[in-house]
Amino acid sequence: MTKRNTSFHKYKSRQKARTVPIDIDRLFHKVLEGDKAALAQGITLIESTLKHDLLQGEELVTKCLKAAHQSIRIGITGVPGVGKSTFIEAFGSFLTASGKKVAVLAVDPSSSITKGSILGDKTRMERLSRDPNAFIRPSPAQDSLGGVARRTRESILLCEAAGYEVILVETVGVGQSETLVHSMVDFFLLLKLAGAGDELQGVKRGIMEMADAVVINKADGENLNAVKYAMTEFQRALHLYPPKTNTWMPKVLRCSSLHQTGIDTVWQTIQNFIELTTNNGHFESNRDVQYKNWFTQTVDDLLQRHFFEEKTIQLAMQQQLQKITAKEVSPVTAARELVGMIYGGNA
Amino acid sequence: MTKRNTSFHKYKSRQKARTVPIDIDRLFHKVLEGDKAALAQGITLIESTLKHDLLQGEELVTKCLKAAHQSIRIGITGVPGVGKSTFIEAFGSFLTASGKKVAVLAVDPSSSITKGSILGDKTRMERLSRDPNAFIRPSPAQDSLGGVARRTRESILLCEAAGYEVILVETVGVGQSETLVHSMVDFFLLLKLAGAGDELQGVKRGIMEMADAVVINKADGENLNAVKYAMTEFQRALHLYPPKTNTWMPKVLRCSSLHQTGIDTVWQTIQNFIELTTNNGHFESNRDVQYKNWFTQTVDDLLQRHFFEEKTIQLAMQQQLQKITAKEVSPVTAARELVGMIYGGNA
Repeated sequence: MTKRNTSFHKYKSRQKARTVPIDIDRLFHKVLEGDKAALAQGITLIESTLKHDLLQGEELVTKCLKAAHQSIRIGITGVPGVGKSTFIEAFGSFLTASGKKVAVLAVDPSSSITKGSILGDKTRMERLSRDPNAFIRPSPAQDSLGGVARRTRESILLCEAAGYEVILVETVGVGQSETLVHSMVDFFLLLKLAGAGDELQGVKRGIMEMADAVVINKADGENLNAVKYAMTEFQRALHLYPPKTNTWMPKVLRCSSLHQTGIDTVWQTIQNFIELTTNNGHFESNRDVQYKNWFTQTVDDLLQRHFFEEKTIQLAMQQQLQKITAKEVSPVTAARELVGMIYGGNA
Repeated sequence: MTKRNTSFHKYKSRQKARTVPIDIDRLFHKVLEGDKAALAQGITLIESTLKHDLLQGEELVTKCLKAAHQSIRIGITGVPGVGKSTFIEAFGSFLTASGKKVAVLAVDPSSSITKGSILGDKTRMERLSRDPNAFIRPSPAQDSLGGVARRTRESILLCEAAGYEVILVETVGVGQSETLVHSMVDFFLLLKLAGAGDELQGVKRGIMEMADAVVINKADGENLNAVKYAMTEFQRALHLYPPKTNTWMPKVLRCSSLHQTGIDTVWQTIQNFIELTTNNGHFESNRDVQYKNWFTQTVDDLLQRHFFEEKTIQLAMQQQLQKITAKEVSPVTAARELVGMIYGGNA
């Protein structure tokens, strides 16, 4: 099946989700059986913004939650040009060759169906996209970071129910997307190039601090001296940070996605991490914390959405903002008056 | 008046604010006249957590907001040992000597009345604390960052109504306190030492990006070569960042608080900044944005506080958290059910 056909089918199923009622129980069982088309349809349902789809999507997610298999969730980030696609192609193929089922998701708040900057084009991972044991899902249409967060977290659960054991969540360094991905994975991998002179960039933007491994990509050919130097530099940068509570020491590795070298070491490192954190209880407690944060963030989002949905609130908010600019009222008093419209005199 | 007496008086007025009703109009007019005791009492009122005090405090703030004079708000940060107190002592005295009225406030979420790590001890700024044109307010008792934010922002307004033309807001690098201070000042000054080997720390923690000036303190004696080197390093670090929308190019300066050298250049730099941003409109628009953010943050805080104040919500929240851990419900569904308890079926 060519890329174009896949896109067309996805488009059709997306349309269908919005007009024909879906038998969630049937869909769920097809997902459980590992049916890729059903999985894609489920994710499309999650991505829908229609009220009815939202509720059906939640029903599906709750079913999948209970059925989800053990999995390893890996976040992968790096600046454009670092070779994320070739790395994921090489790494994913290595995993499927050793019998794993691999799902690839993308978090890209800047993307849209037409202008996705990552994973929008499946041809970038030609081999993996034809692999029966791999499932690749391009990033959804442009949306708020909060929307992207919910969709991706729920998509992970669906993929796990469908039997995918390794979930790769790819992101680019756009705004807060890396922090977001970090909040939904077990292991966070930062891809780097040697000699790119951007050693400080990761430190500056707080990305280095989140990394469980820094992997220097394109470590091949005449590049090897620069790679050794870069590895020392990154090792030093990682020592800037206090030890992690899970006792893991972030590693600096190198690989060549082109020549398929070092890929096995990356996987071995991740397995070492999983073993360590499973034994000391941090693997489970980290997921627990992630779920609880997801919950409280959703509560906050819903509270705000319901509040600002009210036409009278929207109007009053504009008036208060004008009064603030005119220095007629302090921001605190303005806020108290606004919230008081719903919560009464006790606001 | 010794420090001990001052503390005692503050304690008494703090008690008084909680038992005797206050004539806000009278207090406001005394603040306007520049009465330091009245200003201190007003800030104590703002710091109170009693409902009645809160409302009276807001009334005072709104009055002061309209009466506030033109001022320059300067945030000052730096790691412990960098010499913040001696710098503020030297800088503040320089300003009062040139006829300015100077107020010094502190943002220190880690402090309490007994364990304040900054400004808790007025003897650290002996000269300035005796200066009739200076007002120093130690950081309030331990509180949430949100509480500290409100109090400090309101205290700034009170000080401005009392005629203080330069407001110095001191903070230490604890958690998010620097970001908070940056959100309430016109100019953000980062104090550094030469040869401390922590050049990367400011970059790492995102502090450097907020700085309008990096000032190398203790630039005296045999230290001067290290100072020159450090200035070059910081200049280079500052160039990592994209240009600011206000078109200001952050400066690297040096001074000796001990020998009072370079202090005038710091002030001249701040005046240049004010002139530039006043002319291109960013001074005013920045304050506008700060007030609007203060407003929306307060709305969010109030919405959450009212929601979670409900006993039934607290109980239901615990139950939902347990169900999430037991994987009986997805975090999104749990959040929707919780918010639905207040907002009904539409949640």
